[in-house]
Amino acid sequence: MSKPRILSTSVLAQTRLFQIQGIDLAFSNGRTATFESVRMQGDGVVMVAAINAQDELVLIREYAACQDRYEVGFVKGKIDPGETPEISADRELKEEIGFGARCIQKVRKISYSPAYTNLETHLYVATDLYPEQAEGDEIEPLEQMNWPVADIDSLLDHPEVSDVRVIMLLLELQKTALKDTAKYR
Amino acid sequence: MSKPRILSTSVLAQTRLFQIQGIDLAFSNGRTATFESVRMQGDGVVMVAAINAQDELVLIREYAACQDRYEVGFVKGKIDPGETPEISADRELKEEIGFGARCIQKVRKISYSPAYTNLETHLYVATDLYPEQAEGDEIEPLEQMNWPVADIDSLLDHPEVSDVRVIMLLLELQKTALKDTAKYR
Repeated sequence: MSKPRILSTSVLAQTRLFQIQGIDLAFSNGRTATFESVRMQGDGVVMVAAINAQDELVLIREYAACQDRYEVGFVKGKIDPGETPEISADRELKEEIGFGARCIQKVRKISYSPAYTNLETHLYVATDLYPEQAEGDEIEPLEQMNWPVADIDSLLDHPEVSDVRVIMLLLELQKTALKDTAKYR
Repeated sequence: MSKPRILSTSVLAQTRLFQIQGIDLAFSNGRTATFESVRMQGDGVVMVAAINAQDELVLIREYAACQDRYEVGFVKGKIDPGETPEISADRELKEEIGFGARCIQKVRKISYSPAYTNLETHLYVATDLYPEQAEGDEIEPLEQMNWPVADIDSLLDHPEVSDVRVIMLLLELQKTALKDTAKYR
């Protein structure tokens, strides 16, 4: 079974943030199909689990417009043109929670539904924090919440925690804590 | 800080699968902003980690059009009109790997970037499998791979495993195996 051949692509819709693309494919068995994919402009997104000196996660609570409710999660944001993901992670920490980090460790880069989207997020854990505020583009001040790393189980049950990237990072932190407490501290 | 008020919504683009919506918001501090959100039609998606009698994950390897490469992951698909997520999970198992399941346990419902999307997936673990094939809508036959649950760590390092939902389920299975091997068996 060899990889399908892309016959053509077209832009079905284009807005400020998103593009919907049509992809005409010929499969190796001779069948053809048109797929749709959602593409976000730019170089992707970073999400950063910040852990302070008291071994607490520094969380933010932010309005989630598409679902018209608040969501609790980690610092995150778009990578600006010319930035590496690490520099973006450090900038977002300073803008959203008022801390820089002397240690920013990559966890992994993830996709979401790679058949249908190019959405990618670089996931990090930040430790050895120091106070430094930078001005961001937040419309209203972000509510900050500190949560003990030792109590991740109750955070996983929090009704305002739904983003699979946050849940994956929380499970990864628990796994690391079980296996090797040194890795992210 | 009270929740922003939705002033109006508009359809910026509409294709067969997706809609991009504009949301005009007034925040409690008086500032206004227009957000964009991507909406998928329908009742969401299911993803099912199937575990066979040999304690192996039953995986599929499928072409991921938007990234023009193959991706290894779990059985998944859209919930059809009138289906519950559980019925959809059982149907997708029969269509994609040729097994029904006597036990389908909910792990959780996740979102992805709820500020910008309504994308939601119901995550399940299926056990006590029995052979039953149903006809699906696959364009080419799906390649099937069995992978020992005990060897999830190497699957997490697989270059064709990138979907954060799959990674979250794998970490959840490892956590359950560490805490209580009975829960998903």
